[in-house]
Amino acid sequence: MVSATTIDGVKLKPIHDLVDARGTLQHMVRADDPEFFSGFGEIYFSSSNPGIVKGWHRQSMQTNLLSCIQGRLRLVLFDDREGSATRGAVQVVEFGDGHRTLVRVPPGVVYGWKNDTQQTALLANCTDRPHDPASAEKIDLASGRIPYVW
Amino acid sequence: MVSATTIDGVKLKPIHDLVDARGTLQHMVRADDPEFFSGFGEIYFSSSNPGIVKGWHRQSMQTNLLSCIQGRLRLVLFDDREGSATRGAVQVVEFGDGHRTLVRVPPGVVYGWKNDTQQTALLANCTDRPHDPASAEKIDLASGRIPYVW
Repeated sequence: MVSATTIDGVKLKPIHDLVDARGTLQHMVRADDPEFFSGFGEIYFSSSNPGIVKGWHRQSMQTNLLSCIQGRLRLVLFDDREGSATRGAVQVVEFGDGHRTLVRVPPGVVYGWKNDTQQTALLANCTDRPHDPASAEKIDLASGRIPYVW
Repeated sequence: MVSATTIDGVKLKPIHDLVDARGTLQHMVRADDPEFFSGFGEIYFSSSNPGIVKGWHRQSMQTNLLSCIQGRLRLVLFDDREGSATRGAVQVVEFGDGHRTLVRVPPGVVYGWKNDTQQTALLANCTDRPHDPASAEKIDLASGRIPYVW
C-alpha cells in the first residue's frame, strides 16, 4: 500500500515471492536493472521490534534500495530537498510479507520506518555507496522537524 | 562452528550484530572489502522451513557471498574442481543467529544448506554476477554424486 503522494525520484517495484513446500525465494535487486541499480556500496539488515520506530535518516550522496524482507513495516519518506518539485511531500509505503516491494530512496530524502505489528520485522538496505558518516544525518524523532506523526 | 577442512578459496568472516532495545543491525558486505567483494550481480533471499535441505548448487562463473541472516543453517560445501588443491574436501559451516558469518563460496564449489532447527531460517546470497541459468547447475540431492549424508 502506498500513499497518493509520490516524491520525485522515489521508485517502487513489486517483488513476487516464489513459494514452495521448502520455503520461499525472494529477489531484491540485480545489477542489470537500470531503473533501480546505481552501483553497490553495501548491504545490511536492520530489525525492528514490535512498535519500534527507526529514523529519521538522510544521506546527502547515497541512494538506498529498501525491502522489508520479513514481517511488515511502514516506511515514511519526507522530501525536504531544496529545488525539488515535490518539496514538502510525505510519502508512506507499507511493505513486507504479502506485499513485498523494492523502494528506491534517492539522496537527500528523509526516511524512517515503524513496525506496527506484533512480529519482529527485518529491513534490507542495499546502498550505492559504503556508509559514510560525514554525509549521513540522523534527525531526532522527537525534534519535530519532520512533519509526520508516527 | 566450522569443520576442520577448509576448501581452497572459501573464506569466512564473523559478523557482529549490533543489538539494542529497538532491534538489531547486521552488516553483510561492503564494496570496499577487497577480500570478500568481487563485484555485485544480485542479492536475493531464500528461506528454509524446519528440516529442509536446499541444494546442491554449483555455478561455474559466479562467486556467492552467503550469510544466514535469521535463524540458523548448516551450510555444506564440496570441492569437485579439477586441479583444486582441496579436491574431494567437504567443509561444513553452521551459521546464523549467535554466530553470524559471511561465507565466500568461489565458482565451481558445490553447496547446499539444511535447517536443523524448528524455526524458519533465512539465507542471503550476494552474488558477483546476475544469475545465469546457462552456467548454473543443480545436482539432485538424491543422486548420490556428492559424498555427504545430510
